[in-house]
Amino acid sequence: MGETIPNWLLQRAYLTPNRTALVFENQSWSFYQMTEIVMDMAFSLHSLELSQSNTVAVLMKNRPETVWVIHALQQIGVKTVFLNHRLTASELTFQIKDSGAEVIIYDGDFLQTVEKILSLYKIQAFTVDEINRFDKKELTETEFSLDRVCSIMYTSGTTGKPKGVMQTYGNHWWSAIGSSLNLGLQANDAWLCAVPIFHISGMSILMRSVIYGIPVYLMEQFDEKKANTLLQSGKITIMSAVSAMMNRMLAVLEDKTYHANFRCMLLGGGPAPRPLLEECLNKGIPVFQTYGMTETSSQIVTLSPEDSLKKIGSAGKPIFPSQIKVVSNSGQSLPNGEFGEITVKGPNVTIGYLNREKANEESFQDGWFSTGDLGHLDEEGFLYILDRRSDLIISGGENIYPAEIEEVLLEHDGVVEAGVTGVDDPIWGQVPYAFIVSKQVLSVEELFHFCHERLASYKVPKQIIQINELPRNGSNKLMRRNLIQYID
Amino acid sequence: MGETIPNWLLQRAYLTPNRTALVFENQSWSFYQMTEIVMDMAFSLHSLELSQSNTVAVLMKNRPETVWVIHALQQIGVKTVFLNHRLTASELTFQIKDSGAEVIIYDGDFLQTVEKILSLYKIQAFTVDEINRFDKKELTETEFSLDRVCSIMYTSGTTGKPKGVMQTYGNHWWSAIGSSLNLGLQANDAWLCAVPIFHISGMSILMRSVIYGIPVYLMEQFDEKKANTLLQSGKITIMSAVSAMMNRMLAVLEDKTYHANFRCMLLGGGPAPRPLLEECLNKGIPVFQTYGMTETSSQIVTLSPEDSLKKIGSAGKPIFPSQIKVVSNSGQSLPNGEFGEITVKGPNVTIGYLNREKANEESFQDGWFSTGDLGHLDEEGFLYILDRRSDLIISGGENIYPAEIEEVLLEHDGVVEAGVTGVDDPIWGQVPYAFIVSKQVLSVEELFHFCHERLASYKVPKQIIQINELPRNGSNKLMRRNLIQYID
Repeated sequence: MGETIPNWLLQRAYLTPNRTALVFENQSWSFYQMTEIVMDMAFSLHSLELSQSNTVAVLMKNRPETVWVIHALQQIGVKTVFLNHRLTASELTFQIKDSGAEVIIYDGDFLQTVEKILSLYKIQAFTVDEINRFDKKELTETEFSLDRVCSIMYTSGTTGKPKGVMQTYGNHWWSAIGSSLNLGLQANDAWLCAVPIFHISGMSILMRSVIYGIPVYLMEQFDEKKANTLLQSGKITIMSAVSAMMNRMLAVLEDKTYHANFRCMLLGGGPAPRPLLEECLNKGIPVFQTYGMTETSSQIVTLSPEDSLKKIGSAGKPIFPSQIKVVSNSGQSLPNGEFGEITVKGPNVTIGYLNREKANEESFQDGWFSTGDLGHLDEEGFLYILDRRSDLIISGGENIYPAEIEEVLLEHDGVVEAGVTGVDDPIWGQVPYAFIVSKQVLSVEELFHFCHERLASYKVPKQIIQINELPRNGSNKLMRRNLIQYID
Repeated sequence: MGETIPNWLLQRAYLTPNRTALVFENQSWSFYQMTEIVMDMAFSLHSLELSQSNTVAVLMKNRPETVWVIHALQQIGVKTVFLNHRLTASELTFQIKDSGAEVIIYDGDFLQTVEKILSLYKIQAFTVDEINRFDKKELTETEFSLDRVCSIMYTSGTTGKPKGVMQTYGNHWWSAIGSSLNLGLQANDAWLCAVPIFHISGMSILMRSVIYGIPVYLMEQFDEKKANTLLQSGKITIMSAVSAMMNRMLAVLEDKTYHANFRCMLLGGGPAPRPLLEECLNKGIPVFQTYGMTETSSQIVTLSPEDSLKKIGSAGKPIFPSQIKVVSNSGQSLPNGEFGEITVKGPNVTIGYLNREKANEESFQDGWFSTGDLGHLDEEGFLYILDRRSDLIISGGENIYPAEIEEVLLEHDGVVEAGVTGVDDPIWGQVPYAFIVSKQVLSVEELFHFCHERLASYKVPKQIIQINELPRNGSNKLMRRNLIQYID
């Protein structure tokens, strides 16, 4: 009863072998062709004798090989850790260690990073070419168990230590189903994936492709002109994007618009600015704003275009299999209209953080997951988000947790206190600014260098400002929002 | 994890209150309006203090009140027995007794039948009007448990004793999901329900409506002219039908065809004759042939129009969450191309027959359900059905089991042996013919009368033919197929 489903790759290859699965640059693969490649790779990987208790980390770009690897790892049944290749070797090593991964599969482009990781931690590392030279060992899993962990993606929180979010096969399955019940599913559907596969926004497109039987158009790197061209061609019906991408696309779109086939711009990664929404409306671009997170295996709340005008600022309503509830500090469900913490429930919600008993205890209550975000429901049940959790900064769709940057700054000998907050930015939505208290005047240049060694570059503060005292409230809690007053 | 989903009626009323839920004759109801009516009725029913262990039988026509009753019974969480109003009071009484139903809800039209039932069996009986006059008692179930029994529908088998098929909330949910992954789901979708709600073909349309958020156009009685008009109007995108209905529609369609919006004629209830398929092809009517049964909560295998030409005679491939396997007599999985019994697996497959331990033991093996039908898979995995189980006769979409008719004939004092088989019929597909061996010549008229008292009229043999000996094989098994030679 719903505990297993057919191995989704093999089922798709059986049901619709000739439909297009993947388009990348000038190449395309049918589901049959993709499955042939994936199974061959799975047979190679299988010779490593890994099982469901093993974990494999993947450090790869948005390329076809990455799609094959992800499906092949599902075929051999291991858990896959999705590594963000914008992170530093030391950040990546933490995630690899924490997840207990025994193997890392990487793009040759990242050889240097992998060498640094290997100098810090002992792990088997292979490129796709190396894997393909392994001996082959056949296997066929006819079914996937919905409650087995499929993927692990790291996300930070108030403590600054990234936590591995466990996503099951069931999480991905139900996320795809919930999305199709909301957005519909058409014979001509094709999804443009210009967001990173290592984020749930990208990974979830790959899963939908196989579950729905629709092609993914994969972009190695987001390119606003190429994206516009695709959306004008009629080949693409749905695209996942964040506001920064949409802004860049609009900036070069001039007075044109998209093909009538294009029916959904799924806009996530933080609230969309009103001028952006208005421009899309004027150009007839159907924007579906969405609220989701790694822990909900992509969207959990979505606002459809027909509601976007009368509900400006709302994130929408939940997808069909999921529920939202706004609760008080004591966990009581609040009536519509009252502000509180947003909690969510549904089969797309993570089963928990890997090896984080305390965080799991804090985050789950009777099957409800506390997002940490604040908001309210209006009288019709539309969700409005007041504030993202933990002073989260969303920059170009990437989550940045102030606490993580502050922790790095505090590692520096000269820094006594550190506070980080997001500052509005016309391109990225927000960028992080750091404020430090130090015993003597420090070299800002040296501080930047210090950060760059330890943080992915998108997390490095755009400015580091020395001040005399951090703003704190009565209980000595850092008031990050008040840091903005110290900007010249 | 997938064990509960939001109460689907309330979730739909919350997510899309203003979309149309039901259209009947000149009236229509939004999901909000329908939910108001249903909840009011649920509050009335709740005052009966029924719980999940209780069972309520429903004897109603295809009318809006029936839709309200079915949803209201789901709200109070009881199991619903769907009674076929074409059956006789004695057939119905068997099902009511067997299911242990404590209450029957009926249309006033069936008062006479209900009075007969009440003379045979003690049960509480109410019309909808009576229920609406009950005191109200509020309740709200926020979630449905997927493994709870939602509905019970009776079907016969080789033994002739009808068995109650238990369909869970999960069965209906996954059936709807599997169908949408196959047929897609569009914003303008609307499903014409001209098949009986008491059959899974009709009931499943009601469930899809709420899960998808699309309107049901309900017909009290199938009318080929009205159906054609609707399909020409552009309002309907999908219709469920059996060949007999499709034939009648084509007969009055003349040289016209349907609106371009009409995208799927889901044709079930037995194999479709080739001339019918060819005529549909010529007229551009998109026929999806489908194979399913009460036990699979509607379709489990479907053939799409693009395959219908090259795979004439095939039932198609399974819906995404389900699997099919052809097995030998010893239960071994057979390679493609070889004939055997068709077994199916999937979250839409019944959890079993009510109180039929032996039948359940025989029908289920490692999660696979034996359909009793024979067939094979071709090299691409398309299913071909050679023979329906137990010499099943499908007449105008209704299943008729020879054994059930034979049992009735044998109750007659003069009948020594009886055999029933299906004979091709231009209108109904097949009709039952009976062959009897008797001590002396019997009055055929009296035998017809005898049958009419005990059997729904569609089950009464079209001819009753007296012969000297029934055809039997070496092990004395009745060879029903060989009866045809005795027709003059």
